[in-house]
Amino acid sequence: MVGPSWARPEHDNWWREDIAMKLYDYTLAPNPKRVRIFLAEKGITVPTVQVDLRGGEQLTPKFRAINPECTVPVLEFDNGRRIAEVIAICLYFELAHPEPALMGSRAQDKAIVADWHHRVERQGFWAVGDAFRNSAPGLKGRALPGPDDYEQIPALAERGRARVARFFEMMDRELAGREYVAGDRYTIADIMALVTVNFAARIDLKVPEACVHLRRWHQAVNARPSADA
Amino acid sequence: MVGPSWARPEHDNWWREDIAMKLYDYTLAPNPKRVRIFLAEKGITVPTVQVDLRGGEQLTPKFRAINPECTVPVLEFDNGRRIAEVIAICLYFELAHPEPALMGSRAQDKAIVADWHHRVERQGFWAVGDAFRNSAPGLKGRALPGPDDYEQIPALAERGRARVARFFEMMDRELAGREYVAGDRYTIADIMALVTVNFAARIDLKVPEACVHLRRWHQAVNARPSADA
Repeated sequence: MVGPSWARPEHDNWWREDIAMKLYDYTLAPNPKRVRIFLAEKGITVPTVQVDLRGGEQLTPKFRAINPECTVPVLEFDNGRRIAEVIAICLYFELAHPEPALMGSRAQDKAIVADWHHRVERQGFWAVGDAFRNSAPGLKGRALPGPDDYEQIPALAERGRARVARFFEMMDRELAGREYVAGDRYTIADIMALVTVNFAARIDLKVPEACVHLRRWHQAVNARPSADA
Repeated sequence: MVGPSWARPEHDNWWREDIAMKLYDYTLAPNPKRVRIFLAEKGITVPTVQVDLRGGEQLTPKFRAINPECTVPVLEFDNGRRIAEVIAICLYFELAHPEPALMGSRAQDKAIVADWHHRVERQGFWAVGDAFRNSAPGLKGRALPGPDDYEQIPALAERGRARVARFFEMMDRELAGREYVAGDRYTIADIMALVTVNFAARIDLKVPEACVHLRRWHQAVNARPSADA
């Protein structure tokens, strides 16, 4: 961990201010986990504030004033600006701290990483989310994060489970041909897929034994120190 | 339109090859529309190939060989690499042709644009998609794009409609305070929101009269020449 190195990003062409920041976080939730792994891979430490999602702290007036969408993570800059989408938070740190590059190097490479990141999020991560949020007893009436209440849809939980099974098969085919999700280097697309696979395991959606390539990949990325972030 | 200027991206620090490319497109679908507007704003022309989604051409063996996910857009480079997520395709062109910047300038600015782009996609665009795909008579058994068939879920269509109404209200509150979705400049977040509002209108989800700020914004961005791309 580099400590406050984030305050002096010498490499960045766009970023000229020395600004402090903090990260609203919740250790047990998959979305902030994506950011924590990303920061660990960069060797960046950012002060965090825990928001107890299980206790409903995200729905309190105090937290709504920070993020009306009632979600974590939130990255708050000292100038008052806040961003809450994981990809946006990671992009900020990628630009401020280009090394090690986790979002690709040249243009085509960056586009391929973005392609895989977004595809894994859409086909894998949200499918797990559908399966989880539409069936967990503790989320009755709360099938979506955010300020609005939506009833669980059992058919959507079932569809989510079916999609996750297809997702595992697709990833296994892809990883037969290369070491990491987006090519021969570890990137943010691996972080997205790792968090997806581990999130799925929490609702008993395990990678089948037959998916040997996906299992080989998972063992490798899950063994990196960043996986414990 | 700058014609073949895309073959010589002098501004780009990462991109060194002169590579040709083509874009698989379908005029009537909202996802390729996002790319076409982006290219029009940049003044870039790329050769396109129409894929007749209504006629099922995306499910033919010929197109599956191009994109096993059976979706458009697809950007194909002459070296054989292909990318199919809209955000990845736009990122490629942003890096190859930085001006005019549609994804922000400095690091924090870029992160804020990414934040809004992703949020509008998640809360708005996919909610419209849920409403549309789970109710359109022509999409029975095809509630998701892609190679796999999923039955429509009427409750998900209904939830989608409710979410779109909330999305309009949220956007109206946000646009009360600024000219464009992510700040004082037109960006990819405006493209995402414009395509979302127009897609919603096709299934009779109209922006309420009371949402005066959202309507003012929509009128402005929908009047740009790029909106016809």
